[in-house]
Amino acid sequence: MTGMKPFKTLLSRMEALERIERNIGRVGRIEEIPIESAGARILAENVVADFFVPPFKRSAMDGYAVRAEDTYTASSLTSSRLKLIGVQHAGELFEGIVKKGECVQVATGSPVPEGSDAVVMVEFTKLEGDYVEIEKPAYPSANTTPIGEDIKKGDTVIELGEILTPAKVGALAALNRGTIRVYEKPRVAIFSTGSEIKPLGTELLPSQIYDMNSYTLTSIASSNGCEPVLKGIVPDDKESIKSSIIDAASHDIGIFSGGSSVGVRDLFGEIVEEMGEVLFHGLQVKPGKPTLFGMVQGTPIFGMPGYPTSCLSNAYIFLTPALRMMARLPPEHSRKLVARMSTRFVSSSGREQFLTVKVRNGTAFPAFKKSGTITSMVYADGYIILPVNLDVIEKGAEVEVTLFN
Amino acid sequence: MTGMKPFKTLLSRMEALERIERNIGRVGRIEEIPIESAGARILAENVVADFFVPPFKRSAMDGYAVRAEDTYTASSLTSSRLKLIGVQHAGELFEGIVKKGECVQVATGSPVPEGSDAVVMVEFTKLEGDYVEIEKPAYPSANTTPIGEDIKKGDTVIELGEILTPAKVGALAALNRGTIRVYEKPRVAIFSTGSEIKPLGTELLPSQIYDMNSYTLTSIASSNGCEPVLKGIVPDDKESIKSSIIDAASHDIGIFSGGSSVGVRDLFGEIVEEMGEVLFHGLQVKPGKPTLFGMVQGTPIFGMPGYPTSCLSNAYIFLTPALRMMARLPPEHSRKLVARMSTRFVSSSGREQFLTVKVRNGTAFPAFKKSGTITSMVYADGYIILPVNLDVIEKGAEVEVTLFN
Repeated sequence: MTGMKPFKTLLSRMEALERIERNIGRVGRIEEIPIESAGARILAENVVADFFVPPFKRSAMDGYAVRAEDTYTASSLTSSRLKLIGVQHAGELFEGIVKKGECVQVATGSPVPEGSDAVVMVEFTKLEGDYVEIEKPAYPSANTTPIGEDIKKGDTVIELGEILTPAKVGALAALNRGTIRVYEKPRVAIFSTGSEIKPLGTELLPSQIYDMNSYTLTSIASSNGCEPVLKGIVPDDKESIKSSIIDAASHDIGIFSGGSSVGVRDLFGEIVEEMGEVLFHGLQVKPGKPTLFGMVQGTPIFGMPGYPTSCLSNAYIFLTPALRMMARLPPEHSRKLVARMSTRFVSSSGREQFLTVKVRNGTAFPAFKKSGTITSMVYADGYIILPVNLDVIEKGAEVEVTLFN
Repeated sequence: MTGMKPFKTLLSRMEALERIERNIGRVGRIEEIPIESAGARILAENVVADFFVPPFKRSAMDGYAVRAEDTYTASSLTSSRLKLIGVQHAGELFEGIVKKGECVQVATGSPVPEGSDAVVMVEFTKLEGDYVEIEKPAYPSANTTPIGEDIKKGDTVIELGEILTPAKVGALAALNRGTIRVYEKPRVAIFSTGSEIKPLGTELLPSQIYDMNSYTLTSIASSNGCEPVLKGIVPDDKESIKSSIIDAASHDIGIFSGGSSVGVRDLFGEIVEEMGEVLFHGLQVKPGKPTLFGMVQGTPIFGMPGYPTSCLSNAYIFLTPALRMMARLPPEHSRKLVARMSTRFVSSSGREQFLTVKVRNGTAFPAFKKSGTITSMVYADGYIILPVNLDVIEKGAEVEVTLFN
């Protein structure tokens, strides 16, 4: 019978996060993908413009291209009368040249015809047959955009490491980049251990339960820029765990959620220690004390608690920052809000506590039912973290809620 | 030559959003997908438990299952000595029955053997050979979880319309649901119009530019729970626009970004009017005044401005709420923060103004260079909306920034 050792040193959340940060590498593999599916991906090249944007001098308004000096005396009382010699059709080049006393109809974005040096907005004009009455003077270059004003040939427009927002995807299109090099999504191998854990779709014996952690962890991985790989359930023996860790090491990270069977927790730690290095095992947080983090063959390995709520709350706190760092995503991503506690809450764990809450009209109601209940996570809108040394939160006290959505 | 009419009545942002809300329908089509890819999707059924969770009485702690009455006199000075008759291995059923003076080793989550009615935490015990010294009394049911405490058979655990968070995906697994019915993603047909707009990869003539709006709109659609369908560039003539609108009407929504060519803007409005109904055309916002919203054959149709920045800023303000409503996603989704203006900003447009900003250490720096510049969106972290009647924001004034990420 394997002994059940209580944890000796419990690491604080901050120390644990620092150890994770020091040991997690950023994914380096690159793939080239079409820009229409590049939203939210991380750029793996510097995007340099190889032409000017705009590529021609263009009108910034709907109106008439003029020679500015023809409009200097114009006002609504004494308008300047210019002959309309044509229309600058979009996508074509107006063939003529604007001479003294002449103008050409232009639209926002269209080229400014040769000879003209300004655009008068349509609002300050009147069209009368073949003539246009100009009612406001325009200075030279008024309402025009010079070549390359937005982007110069040779400019680095988006830099390696930036996240592709809709605006940046658009800039890639403007620069004629139909495909783009981005970092691959880190591949996350997900395993469940525990003899009582059974795959979905099988018949359960009394004492057995369905594998839940594989799916919460998959969902956490996908929503943090990673590619989950479901590896299924690992039998509770040394050889099986060892070969699963070797399998995990061929991915960017391996995540094991521990069964609750006696001794397996220690067994997993011993095997990681034997094959690589345990960086922490045992955290000063509630729930989720038994979390383990180590490195095997250069691959980070997480051993998450078996209890579904402990597994998920530690996934939010410790795994999410690790996954986002690997995926090169910015660390901050969850929406937060300040709410007032609906009730007095007493915590006497001597550990930091992750407390799930429902938020209604600015009030945070604890959603916690009992340790390990799935529904305390399902019905919650987010969580608060209670500090180690805070024993009581009074009713009405302000708390910061991190939202799950 | 088609006339260039200035807009007659400009609708306010709030009125426009109300008209959109009144006319947009929620997607009703349903698909069944594996739960490992169901994260962030919207549930299209009520999920009812068809068994109890936990399915057996289980231990909430690592320790020893005992008859509570055997421990009533226990303390660290005068421990109660119980005979260890075995181990409750995870995933199996312990065959024996715990009798007076006996105990069985259990782990968190494992069943509580017959005959016992409480669990003593390992921390309050000492193992001595075949005996366990119990140093703390346990009341009946201590550290045990009854059958069905978390979820009762017949309970509705997750309701139709809820968004699938990692915890809810996990609950589906716990309930043995390998696949789940979710609402389909709304299909968004995206068109660009404008003779000056050319597809990526083609050679440009002077006066032509690459199609940018199709890609920003695709990115906006994907990041708001929709399935974009890139339809390419529509020639600037009545028949082409008409048949594109008919094509659009076979999707959940059609989005056209307007070319800037003279008259096309009005042409598009006339065609929508002829084929259906124009609900608004012309908004009291800057940039993006010419935005159009209408219905054709029951399908919402947006006509977005052609200028890329105007198109994108109105996509954030007007299109995103429409897409999220169709996709049944919660309306609020962007992170916001309060910052102080780096500089005095004068706005005299008489319209609400969308101003892009960079945020550094709590200070908002206007990223706006000039109307229509792509880089003013690319280099921004988010935007602020300046009210219609605010002409000046003073340096140091507090503003609310909606972040792009």
